[in-house]
Amino acid sequence: MPADLFAATDVIVTKRDGGELTDPQIDWVVDAYTRGVVADEQMSSLAMAILLNGMNAREIARWTAAMIASGERMDFSSLGRPTADKHSTGGVGDKVTLPLAPLVAACGVAVPQLSGRGLGHTGGTLDKLESIPGWRAALSNDEMLAVLRDVGAVICAAGDGLAPADKKLYALRDVTGTVEAIPLIASSIMSKKIAEGTGALVLDVKVGSGAFMKDVTQASELARTMVSLGESAGVRTVALLTAMDTPLGLTAGNAIEVAESLEVLAGGGPADVVELTLRLAREMLAAAGVSGVDPADKLADGSAMDHWRRMIAAQGGDPLAPLPVARESHVVLAPASGTLTRLDAHAVGVAAWRLGAGRARKEDAVSAGAGVVMHAKPGAPVRAGAPLLTLLTDEAERFAGALDALAGGFDVDEAGPPPLPLVIDRIGA
Amino acid sequence: MPADLFAATDVIVTKRDGGELTDPQIDWVVDAYTRGVVADEQMSSLAMAILLNGMNAREIARWTAAMIASGERMDFSSLGRPTADKHSTGGVGDKVTLPLAPLVAACGVAVPQLSGRGLGHTGGTLDKLESIPGWRAALSNDEMLAVLRDVGAVICAAGDGLAPADKKLYALRDVTGTVEAIPLIASSIMSKKIAEGTGALVLDVKVGSGAFMKDVTQASELARTMVSLGESAGVRTVALLTAMDTPLGLTAGNAIEVAESLEVLAGGGPADVVELTLRLAREMLAAAGVSGVDPADKLADGSAMDHWRRMIAAQGGDPLAPLPVARESHVVLAPASGTLTRLDAHAVGVAAWRLGAGRARKEDAVSAGAGVVMHAKPGAPVRAGAPLLTLLTDEAERFAGALDALAGGFDVDEAGPPPLPLVIDRIGA
Repeated sequence: MPADLFAATDVIVTKRDGGELTDPQIDWVVDAYTRGVVADEQMSSLAMAILLNGMNAREIARWTAAMIASGERMDFSSLGRPTADKHSTGGVGDKVTLPLAPLVAACGVAVPQLSGRGLGHTGGTLDKLESIPGWRAALSNDEMLAVLRDVGAVICAAGDGLAPADKKLYALRDVTGTVEAIPLIASSIMSKKIAEGTGALVLDVKVGSGAFMKDVTQASELARTMVSLGESAGVRTVALLTAMDTPLGLTAGNAIEVAESLEVLAGGGPADVVELTLRLAREMLAAAGVSGVDPADKLADGSAMDHWRRMIAAQGGDPLAPLPVARESHVVLAPASGTLTRLDAHAVGVAAWRLGAGRARKEDAVSAGAGVVMHAKPGAPVRAGAPLLTLLTDEAERFAGALDALAGGFDVDEAGPPPLPLVIDRIGA
Repeated sequence: MPADLFAATDVIVTKRDGGELTDPQIDWVVDAYTRGVVADEQMSSLAMAILLNGMNAREIARWTAAMIASGERMDFSSLGRPTADKHSTGGVGDKVTLPLAPLVAACGVAVPQLSGRGLGHTGGTLDKLESIPGWRAALSNDEMLAVLRDVGAVICAAGDGLAPADKKLYALRDVTGTVEAIPLIASSIMSKKIAEGTGALVLDVKVGSGAFMKDVTQASELARTMVSLGESAGVRTVALLTAMDTPLGLTAGNAIEVAESLEVLAGGGPADVVELTLRLAREMLAAAGVSGVDPADKLADGSAMDHWRRMIAAQGGDPLAPLPVARESHVVLAPASGTLTRLDAHAVGVAAWRLGAGRARKEDAVSAGAGVVMHAKPGAPVRAGAPLLTLLTDEAERFAGALDALAGGFDVDEAGPPPLPLVIDRIGA
């Protein structure tokens, strides 16, 4: 038997039996998997053993380092400016990256924002931006650095050279029931962010029905794990736990979320989106060591919007072109008068996905115009027969599935508990 | 996403989260894996989840039935005689199948013994028999039935048509650290035995350092699971838990184990081999509903030996030809005078394997003459400088590795505890 194969089962059996993997075992298994010496069926049984038996802090840190070492590392020291990045674990209507990156750039901190596409019911930042005519997500490392230098903010796809072990492992976990492992989630996110070379990082860990993490305990554990990984790698890292029981803002889709982001950049927009954008901006500035600038001023004076337009134009987009509009719409009316006591994030996310805003497989295309516009947020009064939601799609036959997803997804009552606070907790080093 | 792929992750996640698989889920996943619709990396993460979270009796029974349904079933009803088979979970020096099959045939019960090859430190019945010049393990179903009809006993390899799901899954478990799952071990063994069509089955579940199961609790659980599976499928099933702390008999290898089996068939042989052979024969006769025959008489009167010669000859072997002899030998001397208080089965098994008696990979060849001959059993007096073990190999450079395996593998002391009983427990329906 090849020595490599013996070692693969040894590593699997160690973790299966509740033991700790040694540093050389972790270095070897991540590298050998990237090279194809450890087979998919071996890595998937190891991933299941990790999911069920866990990894300690040392193992997670080493696993992350091994994934970083599988590819290239970027370096922004030539910019001569502090850098800060933000990562959200994904939610419904979470368009905050769009106004946030140019806003923080307007405050003097460079934002190298590597983003992803949506899979399932949560949207992807790149999908949203691609609804802007001409905008392109794929940049070479040199192009990315140039936009960052010229504009101060860039939002683009991660290159193939960054943490290739993570790319391969993520695709495997997706089909083997091993996505929900905190050590693997944390190392996947942090390996990319550390390899990217940002100096500071603010994590937005979503909690609730529309998020990956359904309860605060799990989300706190994930947040603490990631903060510790970042700090150990010399990245100043802070995590916010934020509510994802109801969608963020009043839109869930692609072009409609870009439009809502423009409202925020113009000094308006829904209160929750503005609150979270400003809170994250302040955390990023503090983590980057910049003080004496109030991001609210940069929304008010138009400089955030100015950075947005330059950022979009630098990636081929026309910031003034009209956004795509869905061909079909259907209005859901409030069934009673009272207070909207609940509007479930997962239900809205699945509805938007079924309307065409999201994809089931990586190779699927998304519809730019599709999504859900909300006419009220939880806590607001509604009147029987007034519009509650507007569903948008290019294919009318998609309405049925979306309405099915929304059934039981909202309540109108006499009264209800006050909405939960948006920011639940803050976890720093 | 194809419906099949969705269902695979659903099945994995159900078991991962500690749930029970439904009958349709089990039927589907075993069949889809056999067809290649469920991928290796999905089945291996499921196998790890089963190993760590277990399966209940219903799930194990259904999994076994699904594996049986993946292939053909044999039928010996045309023989007009009761049938009984024996399965050992594998040990060092366990040659009992060789004298047992012809002995039980001599008592009037047909023995359709499908056997395997050795992997790792435990030997394989087919490897042992292949040291007999001319003997061949591969028979068609018709040939097998003909030998069974003519001689009353046949020892051969399982055909490809029997439980193909098990063949594929076993090869996968071997490289993914998922061998040691009681539900999967039990269903693997029992699917083949039930599909084979035997009317009665006696299981020899080995416990101790040289066995797969290291403690009695685990071994009992495996035995009870298999007895229940057999009885549910209409096979009268009994299990013995037997000691495997020290090798069985005085030989561990291939040709040397055939020679020791011939001693037993000739009415002699080591006491432990004779005791276990007779005990298993009596259990097989009882399970097959035959009474009034004492197998000890069939050893004494030569009829067991007569059945052996006819069985070997029916498969092309020359029962009177001289057996192969190893080219090199090395004698290990007793380091002190006293009592041999311990002779570790695992150490002897690994030594025999390294001398060439076993294989590391399925495609390796084994040496017919290699192995370890023991000159004393635990409890026996030994004299300093007298031969304790003789190591046999075709390649002298193998001695070093074998001696390394034996270091610390035996103790000679003033006195010691009496040897453990050979049969630890009996588990019936």
